[in-house]
Amino acid sequence: MRILILGGDGYLGWPTAMRFSNRGHEVHVVDDYLRRRAHLDAGTDSLTPILPDLPGRAAAWEEITGRSIGVTEGDLTDWPVVEEVFGAFRPDAVVHYGEMPSAPYSMKDRHHAVFTQTNNVIGTLNVLWAIRDLVPDCHLVKLGTMGEYGTPDIDIEEGYIEIVHNGRADYLPFPKVPGSMYHLSKVHDSHNIHFACRVWGLRATDLHQGVVYGIQTEETRLDDRLGTRFDYDDVFGTALNRFCVQAVIGHPLTVYGTGRQTRGYLNIVDTLRCIELAVEHPADAGELRVFNQFTESFSIMDLAELVQKAGAKYGLEVEIQPVDNPRVEREDHYYNPAHTKLLDLGLRPHLLSAELVESMFSVIERFQDRVIRDHILPRDRWRPSG
Amino acid sequence: MRILILGGDGYLGWPTAMRFSNRGHEVHVVDDYLRRRAHLDAGTDSLTPILPDLPGRAAAWEEITGRSIGVTEGDLTDWPVVEEVFGAFRPDAVVHYGEMPSAPYSMKDRHHAVFTQTNNVIGTLNVLWAIRDLVPDCHLVKLGTMGEYGTPDIDIEEGYIEIVHNGRADYLPFPKVPGSMYHLSKVHDSHNIHFACRVWGLRATDLHQGVVYGIQTEETRLDDRLGTRFDYDDVFGTALNRFCVQAVIGHPLTVYGTGRQTRGYLNIVDTLRCIELAVEHPADAGELRVFNQFTESFSIMDLAELVQKAGAKYGLEVEIQPVDNPRVEREDHYYNPAHTKLLDLGLRPHLLSAELVESMFSVIERFQDRVIRDHILPRDRWRPSG
Repeated sequence: MRILILGGDGYLGWPTAMRFSNRGHEVHVVDDYLRRRAHLDAGTDSLTPILPDLPGRAAAWEEITGRSIGVTEGDLTDWPVVEEVFGAFRPDAVVHYGEMPSAPYSMKDRHHAVFTQTNNVIGTLNVLWAIRDLVPDCHLVKLGTMGEYGTPDIDIEEGYIEIVHNGRADYLPFPKVPGSMYHLSKVHDSHNIHFACRVWGLRATDLHQGVVYGIQTEETRLDDRLGTRFDYDDVFGTALNRFCVQAVIGHPLTVYGTGRQTRGYLNIVDTLRCIELAVEHPADAGELRVFNQFTESFSIMDLAELVQKAGAKYGLEVEIQPVDNPRVEREDHYYNPAHTKLLDLGLRPHLLSAELVESMFSVIERFQDRVIRDHILPRDRWRPSG
Repeated sequence: MRILILGGDGYLGWPTAMRFSNRGHEVHVVDDYLRRRAHLDAGTDSLTPILPDLPGRAAAWEEITGRSIGVTEGDLTDWPVVEEVFGAFRPDAVVHYGEMPSAPYSMKDRHHAVFTQTNNVIGTLNVLWAIRDLVPDCHLVKLGTMGEYGTPDIDIEEGYIEIVHNGRADYLPFPKVPGSMYHLSKVHDSHNIHFACRVWGLRATDLHQGVVYGIQTEETRLDDRLGTRFDYDDVFGTALNRFCVQAVIGHPLTVYGTGRQTRGYLNIVDTLRCIELAVEHPADAGELRVFNQFTESFSIMDLAELVQKAGAKYGLEVEIQPVDNPRVEREDHYYNPAHTKLLDLGLRPHLLSAELVESMFSVIERFQDRVIRDHILPRDRWRPSG
């Protein structure tokens, strides 16, 4: 198959590109290095050193495996770029990670909120138009987020829910109560994609993904030059990955608030498998299929305690230090989201264990001199102070 | 009160500004003439002649009533404009009509879709930020649309619905299945405003308005120079208004498809009253209140037949000629939306009658020489042909 990876320079995008290439697919990646630029602006960086650009990464990949990956360095909000890529590559499937992925980034100020929503919504509109007009049979596999749902007081279903009301019933999109300007942008995308499927007959799968952890995949292990980025700072770092870095460098684990906030999580290797399963089993024409993509739920405190325990075994003294929650979110809430559809397609989860955490410690230790310590505590608050 | 009217040059915006000014409020209007420019580009125009700009309209208003209306000619997506207006005027309430309002316009092509979503979503984000940072107690009265809901097979509630599911219950945003890129932009706004209320504590009322008809209000009747615009073309004209013009000029009524599509409608004088009621009874801090703003439901064919009957009485021979539906929409569907909250606040509806239609005929007749006949049939199709 011809598989186009949008956001192919990212934490998940680059490993996904290598995975499909390794399986013999024809792969093309697009990225305009938004995340690298945001790190440069903020004075932060990936823990792991990564090659300086996509042509370099693709060259290393080819040298090591003999397989080639095509590269476009460009911005999805720039229509001529999108038109050219879709027209020339004519993908059978598009895996769309190509968005600004950070809630704290989107909540910095008005400018960052406007940028995040414009970048994500308009980029995705361009992708929908390109599919519609150039490759209408192409399957869009879009990365959404479990954060679109928020924390309702009922079971969360996979994208849709049957609502029985005043003696009638309909199967409708699950109501969304997202918690940041970034999460809102994903909700907007979901509505736009739903429309494109209903009205234009496109086929799409929206993967409402949980929080991803882990640092290595089958392909990144082949050679140090193939490593993926790994963020631990307050803006791009996510819970478990950030805690593992904090544990290694002897920084107290920064639990926000009570730490009782519960979310779905999954291993990076399961992300790759889920993407493969979605691509191998395309949605029908006219269908927007939603899968909740995570394997287990944990509270933040669960994760902190797991890292503390694994640290003790590994010889690290790990302290947990709750900090004032910068976000506005419920800390005590019901959380029971369905996540059976990917299991039905054959996903066999790699569950979280102390051993996995220890293996992350050992990779992180190799790069601990690269840690920039003054960007670990949260700076961006959801509510204006005073 | 100090009342800011965004989109104050429009069909409803200008009459709303005059209404509040006439009631003794301090009124300021903002518009960048987006609709006038779109008409110029398309070769279409308002049926009624209107003064060439807002300073001219405000000057006429002052000459006739002795009351002044402040004017800013500027674009809501331009942050310095928004910051300056909110900072200088410090409104108690903002009535926000300031968006691209046309579904066919948004469906012309990629460019128009991207423009519509950017213009509406970013303009509204700027307004939310201005309220948050400059006038946090200000009440936002936002014009949404009944079209956000689509046509679900259950009763439509006012903004939220209690969902009982697997033995638990929550009161959640009503799921939205909108029917165009324009309607999607309104859904995105609704989610962004909900967030601003939940997380920043803003107060807002989202008026999910039906289709408005009518040509005169208490204030437009004072003088011809105070008239509001009246669109009948395929892009900006809405069902009943368009049919009345077609009846007067002897053009067959352009019913799309079977004409069994049913929607909520209201008289322009009821729109003004609903806005007044919302402004007089602000939402609580932290609350996004949603009112379904219409007074009666009709199918398109109901309206065409009413115009035909009123025409016969008035001496016009009116033909109904179904045209191929350019939209992708259900023509046979359930439709039973709640609309009690504005009635509870005191709205006394002006229901649709043959007499009202005849009074519209008489105003339209005065301006019938201005009708541009080659922009009546629909040109923009929801699905690419072939």
